[in-house]
Amino acid sequence: MQKQKEISMESTIRQTITAALAEDMGHGDATSNALVPAEARCTARLIAKQDGVLSGITVYRGVFEALDTAIESWQGRSDGDVIAADDVVASFQGNTRAILAAERTALNFLQHLSGIATLTRSYVDAIAGLDCRVCDTRKTTPLLRVLEKAAVRHGGGTNHRYNLTDGILIKENHIAAAGGIATAITRARDHAHHLMKVEVEVTNMEELRQALEAGADVIMLDNMDNETMRSAVALNWELTNGRVLLEASGNVSLARIRAMAETGVDIISVGSLTHSAPSLDVSLLITPETAD
Amino acid sequence: MQKQKEISMESTIRQTITAALAEDMGHGDATSNALVPAEARCTARLIAKQDGVLSGITVYRGVFEALDTAIESWQGRSDGDVIAADDVVASFQGNTRAILAAERTALNFLQHLSGIATLTRSYVDAIAGLDCRVCDTRKTTPLLRVLEKAAVRHGGGTNHRYNLTDGILIKENHIAAAGGIATAITRARDHAHHLMKVEVEVTNMEELRQALEAGADVIMLDNMDNETMRSAVALNWELTNGRVLLEASGNVSLARIRAMAETGVDIISVGSLTHSAPSLDVSLLITPETAD
Amino acid sequence: MQKQKEISMESTIRQTITAALAEDMGHGDATSNALVPAEARCTARLIAKQDGVLSGITVYRGVFEALDTAIESWQGRSDGDVIAADDVVASFQGNTRAILAAERTALNFLQHLSGIATLTRSYVDAIAGLDCRVCDTRKTTPLLRVLEKAAVRHGGGTNHRYNLTDGILIKENHIAAAGGIATAITRARDHAHHLMKVEVEVTNMEELRQALEAGADVIMLDNMDNETMRSAVALNWELTNGRVLLEASGNVSLARIRAMAETGVDIISVGSLTHSAPSLDVSLLITPETAD
Amino acid sequence: MQKQKEISMESTIRQTITAALAEDMGHGDATSNALVPAEARCTARLIAKQDGVLSGITVYRGVFEALDTAIESWQGRSDGDVIAADDVVASFQGNTRAILAAERTALNFLQHLSGIATLTRSYVDAIAGLDCRVCDTRKTTPLLRVLEKAAVRHGGGTNHRYNLTDGILIKENHIAAAGGIATAITRARDHAHHLMKVEVEVTNMEELRQALEAGADVIMLDNMDNETMRSAVALNWELTNGRVLLEASGNVSLARIRAMAETGVDIISVGSLTHSAPSLDVSLLITPETAD
Amino acid sequence: MQKQKEISMESTIRQTITAALAEDMGHGDATSNALVPAEARCTARLIAKQDGVLSGITVYRGVFEALDTAIESWQGRSDGDVIAADDVVASFQGNTRAILAAERTALNFLQHLSGIATLTRSYVDAIAGLDCRVCDTRKTTPLLRVLEKAAVRHGGGTNHRYNLTDGILIKENHIAAAGGIATAITRARDHAHHLMKVEVEVTNMEELRQALEAGADVIMLDNMDNETMRSAVALNWELTNGRVLLEASGNVSLARIRAMAETGVDIISVGSLTHSAPSLDVSLLITPETAD
Amino acid sequence: MQKQKEISMESTIRQTITAALAEDMGHGDATSNALVPAEARCTARLIAKQDGVLSGITVYRGVFEALDTAIESWQGRSDGDVIAADDVVASFQGNTRAILAAERTALNFLQHLSGIATLTRSYVDAIAGLDCRVCDTRKTTPLLRVLEKAAVRHGGGTNHRYNLTDGILIKENHIAAAGGIATAITRARDHAHHLMKVEVEVTNMEELRQALEAGADVIMLDNMDNETMRSAVALNWELTNGRVLLEASGNVSLARIRAMAETGVDIISVGSLTHSAPSLDVSLLITPETAD
Repeated sequence: MQKQKEISMESTIRQTITAALAEDMGHGDATSNALVPAEARCTARLIAKQDGVLSGITVYRGVFEALDTAIESWQGRSDGDVIAADDVVASFQGNTRAILAAERTALNFLQHLSGIATLTRSYVDAIAGLDCRVCDTRKTTPLLRVLEKAAVRHGGGTNHRYNLTDGILIKENHIAAAGGIATAITRARDHAHHLMKVEVEVTNMEELRQALEAGADVIMLDNMDNETMRSAVALNWELTNGRVLLEASGNVSLARIRAMAETGVDIISVGSLTHSAPSLDVSLLITPETAD
Repeated sequence: MQKQKEISMESTIRQTITAALAEDMGHGDATSNALVPAEARCTARLIAKQDGVLSGITVYRGVFEALDTAIESWQGRSDGDVIAADDVVASFQGNTRAILAAERTALNFLQHLSGIATLTRSYVDAIAGLDCRVCDTRKTTPLLRVLEKAAVRHGGGTNHRYNLTDGILIKENHIAAAGGIATAITRARDHAHHLMKVEVEVTNMEELRQALEAGADVIMLDNMDNETMRSAVALNWELTNGRVLLEASGNVSLARIRAMAETGVDIISVGSLTHSAPSLDVSLLITPETAD
Repeated sequence: MQKQKEISMESTIRQTITAALAEDMGHGDATSNALVPAEARCTARLIAKQDGVLSGITVYRGVFEALDTAIESWQGRSDGDVIAADDVVASFQGNTRAILAAERTALNFLQHLSGIATLTRSYVDAIAGLDCRVCDTRKTTPLLRVLEKAAVRHGGGTNHRYNLTDGILIKENHIAAAGGIATAITRARDHAHHLMKVEVEVTNMEELRQALEAGADVIMLDNMDNETMRSAVALNWELTNGRVLLEASGNVSLARIRAMAETGVDIISVGSLTHSAPSLDVSLLITPETAD
Repeated sequence: MQKQKEISMESTIRQTITAALAEDMGHGDATSNALVPAEARCTARLIAKQDGVLSGITVYRGVFEALDTAIESWQGRSDGDVIAADDVVASFQGNTRAILAAERTALNFLQHLSGIATLTRSYVDAIAGLDCRVCDTRKTTPLLRVLEKAAVRHGGGTNHRYNLTDGILIKENHIAAAGGIATAITRARDHAHHLMKVEVEVTNMEELRQALEAGADVIMLDNMDNETMRSAVALNWELTNGRVLLEASGNVSLARIRAMAETGVDIISVGSLTHSAPSLDVSLLITPETAD
Repeated sequence: MQKQKEISMESTIRQTITAALAEDMGHGDATSNALVPAEARCTARLIAKQDGVLSGITVYRGVFEALDTAIESWQGRSDGDVIAADDVVASFQGNTRAILAAERTALNFLQHLSGIATLTRSYVDAIAGLDCRVCDTRKTTPLLRVLEKAAVRHGGGTNHRYNLTDGILIKENHIAAAGGIATAITRARDHAHHLMKVEVEVTNMEELRQALEAGADVIMLDNMDNETMRSAVALNWELTNGRVLLEASGNVSLARIRAMAETGVDIISVGSLTHSAPSLDVSLLITPETAD
Repeated sequence: MQKQKEISMESTIRQTITAALAEDMGHGDATSNALVPAEARCTARLIAKQDGVLSGITVYRGVFEALDTAIESWQGRSDGDVIAADDVVASFQGNTRAILAAERTALNFLQHLSGIATLTRSYVDAIAGLDCRVCDTRKTTPLLRVLEKAAVRHGGGTNHRYNLTDGILIKENHIAAAGGIATAITRARDHAHHLMKVEVEVTNMEELRQALEAGADVIMLDNMDNETMRSAVALNWELTNGRVLLEASGNVSLARIRAMAETGVDIISVGSLTHSAPSLDVSLLITPETAD
């Protein structure tokens, strides 16, 4: 797959980097300012300590560049790359004080995001060969959604809606307020702009039938067992020729996901990708530059 | 322990809440705006789905209040409380649209922070009765440090330095740059303001001896085995009558922490408290208000 | 139609108000500070000087409240209301200095937005009785999109996508880059999250056929004459039973819009709603409070 | 006239550009990211579709540069230039994704501002040869004042005060609060710093006489007919030898402005320059770069 | 003189307060959080330790309210009041932690601003009875200009222009660039909006004559001795009947200012008012609330 | 002493510079824009008018660069350098408009900070040869703390804690709240992270003894006379072998400081360094570039 630099608000990423540095920096790195000569330079190598999938390498580099605009000789792997323990993930040269000061912030981003990409990849691999996608949720860490959703893509997953504006997802409380599934779908479609699809959450076959008949574009099967999901897939083919997307949600685990995917659902959404992924262990080694 | 509202920059917390809401809200909750009457009100109950330790309840409440200043009848548990599955952690009333729109952001904070408090508590309980503290690190999620460090306290842990400014921690690279442990400590003390202690990281007994003789205030024992740590404790008593604090770091696990604490070290710092805690499962139930 | 307060980021609106006040205020209202007693109060009445549709009344009120939190006795019409010349659109009481200082900023918002709502209404009225919607574009005034799109709704129009993220709209340049309509649609759908529809712009019947066959959800008919649009509608019924939405775009005028709608297209998008609407004339009258 | 780059807070302009891009970008250009190769480059040409006066070309260029710092081969007309339909207003080369993503925002600025400059020019031309200036008001679009006032200058107009701080303008309500024109002028002068002039609004000859006798520096003739304005000019020559500036305001139209100017007033202020100018039609053509 | 609350951007002041608190607070008041019960309340009294003129009391109060919205029983003197050592300048009640945490920031504002007001008053008193004003300059502390210029007014002084936009002041370098005083004045007047006066700096009688003949509104006499200033005043009467304002600048001291004012100049501007005023000593006493 | 560029948040400094420029610039330099050709360039030389110690030269340069990124041929002295009247402190070339527009803001920073460095140096010189340090306080100008504390270092002084978070300082009110010095110290240490020292303020020998016995790390001797301070030093040697730092505070003057230092205290903190230092007189000379 070709890796592409996406046009998005890099200024937003830069703001995130700046704020994270400020959080860790206070008004200066007391230790390095005291002990490291201002002009000292070093070579830094980023070493994987575990196997996994890389995510956040652009942010990682950006953290260093925010403190030292003269970072040089950058060589690095790309987001989405599979990495193995002991791999040199990146190497670069720069001012030693700046590199020491930025190290923790840069690693905090990289380890967190690579942890998400790595966990996502394990789910994606678990359903390899099936026509089903692993998808994230809005259960992300506050303020890091754009980066975490990118990490899910780096791990081979796909994204659900980004926020409350760019997709309609009708849940139980909405249906109750609207007075029924059909009314809810109609009113949602009237309110949404004409490029938005309407998704409805259902918990049983009766609700599914109502949603299909009311013209939902996507239907979330909430916490159904595999047998019920198989029936849901069958009903969708019967009523819409499979044109409606079915998304399975709830109680997803690595152990169960393949069986879920085999029911024929189109998408399986997994909250733990972003809310419970352990960080990936990566560390930074520094070698002083020597005069010769 | 008495729970206290700490005087800090609540404006910072409010900014974090506002930014997190903006991240999830886009330009409005398309679904609720379409389907829920503008004036509808409901009762919301926050229910624990797992046992754990609560953290983030103030932020949680603040998220709802940021959208609906007329939140009423709030009843809630406190940060640091032990909660059990099925407990009603909080209940309140407010505008239904606002509550639905804020739900995900509020839960994202609460589940993440309670996950940290819960993991911390398990480490703290593992060394119960020993004169040793569990302490966090700077391995926090970018932009959430102040909240995550509070979560560690809610779980019974203590905090390490907050950032690069409010504590001196001399590591291997600093020592190399300064030309030795003694020089490094002296120069660090000259540079630091007079309320800062100087901590040095050592990896063996020889470095420990140098650090003790050079007058370090705190010494980090990096990745030592338990036997070496016991020797380190003994040497500290011999040379300083135990006046220097010893902090064990590296390879800490729930299985190992009690044995580490029994070596006599004063502090054990654990990065995974903040970088790898799974979120705690909590959910929100909503009941429409009915006229009677 | 029931008017509803939409849950959205009011903090965003407040920021817009604050920034607009700062722009007009500099470091204080030199004239009022010099001439009006600090404690003077007055009654203010907002009078329409033209017939039109009201939009921005909430922002208008918010501007005054940003300077005088003790605004009282507010009585006002609602966004979306039809108003006539000489109508009292709102009346309220407050500190005279604050009201004089906020007057221009408040009117600048209200007149601009009501101008948009009024122009929109004239387009909507022109196609009354036909099954076709008037829709805006992204040709909005920088920094005011959320307010201008609301004004379009207040005038009875509907909104197109809000920004580049919440909808796929494939234009000529994208098709060229992708190597054809079918490829473009497929790749767009893979890239988009599963709640996004895919719209394609076509300029002739051949492209339309390709787009319909490739499974576009919405098709923009760019600058077609009415006869071609009639053929387009027919082809859509033939190939998809009318399931695909057709949006007419380009060269829309009040004189022409009814004939365009009669071709059977579903949506007509009109850039001038937001980029060329003249402001609606409204003025503020102030009466000092008198002691008796 | 020599065109000059004014030293002002370019950081302010950059913030405006960044905020406008964020408004249109959301979290990325979904269509271009999906369909256009990341490294593709193109030539872009900005073509006028109408005759007019250019304004905003610097902002226009700044929008592209905010997304693609490697914009090349820029050739462009200058703000204030008269342009004709089919003119190439600017051409440049850059990354295709960035240019497509920035296109709408850049055009929204340019078309709006050029619309203002074009309308201003028509008013200025209407009084050609007379010793009278066309001037704007504070009736600007919120958040765009600095750009709109520059657009007025590009069209040959002049600016009134920028905000409530940098000029005294005493209106009816202020006079009533102060207890008379003479008192109002005296108190305003005491309060203002010594580089500010004092302007008073009058509605008839009696008020004009009072204002002249009280030492106003500038007098606004509010909604007077042409004959009254001629008398006002005469009285000003009689009492002050024409030293006081007279500004006509209210009910200005292209049809009437020449007759107004012929009364001898020094300045005519026109609100519609900024609140009701239709946008100028300009479009962007893109040609992919080809390897040869 | 009636003291008035000026309508200005209080949001600006609130931002200044918030930023100053953040600067002093870091992530919390470690000492008070450790030692003072969260619910403890106290009475605080602000005591003058020196005679002087009060300025900044509104900001002072605002700092406390930013941390404790339940400040009660406020009684305080007003900005511009003359205070004497041992005076109780203000008293209020509130949460003890909040008051201790805000104390330093609040005093830093108050002591700095009262120092300026006090120094200004001494200059104003020195020329009592003469028809001459003491005026500040743009030599203010970065980021505090609006507060410092208010402090000058509280001390009885007046303000010069606020910034580079709201007044024209032509200095030597500008004259050289323009090619002479007369050209400079003409071009400045063309460029300025019509409510701005034009001031020119002159260093000798020849330049003064040119400036008077060219129609300057205000003339700054730069570093002239008293005799030359007397001649300048005479020439102004001869040529303009005293209509042009003369501002003396440079080498002003308390010892010299009365003699300068006696030359007949209208204004004397004094940079040291804002750049070198020592702070006024004021302190805060705290008494715990006791239960009885 | 080697001068070093400290790694800290330069983005913070840049924000301060930008905000200060905005404060002085308004929406543009009316005078220079009117009179100075847009392309004119000049050579600027910064000349000391008094002897002193330089501080703020980096900020000074940054102000010019913020307006003119093409500043050239910079030659300048360094922060901490002793300078004499008539010294050329810096020289550089750039756009004339930009240099004139930035001049006042740049000088306002430099003169204020150099004033602080110069005053600090006089205190440091007064205790030359004694084993005692001159230290600042938190009595800084709001929003300028980081720069002012750097100025103190440039003058040879040292810094006290930066804010309320990075050091514990227990004062009278805290002791009262905690119920005694010993309890206060114990609770503070429990609450602080383990790299923070605990300082206690005492006013007499009895309190000093309690503080020493309770294990304070640093003790502030508040407003003691010299004889009492000598006794305090003696007691510290008796009880802790001089291990506790003693800081003298209150009533420090240039006349008295040497005698205070001779009592043997380790540190003398001086509030007036930052709250009452008069600015250092420095001025900017500009020479137009000439073609030859």
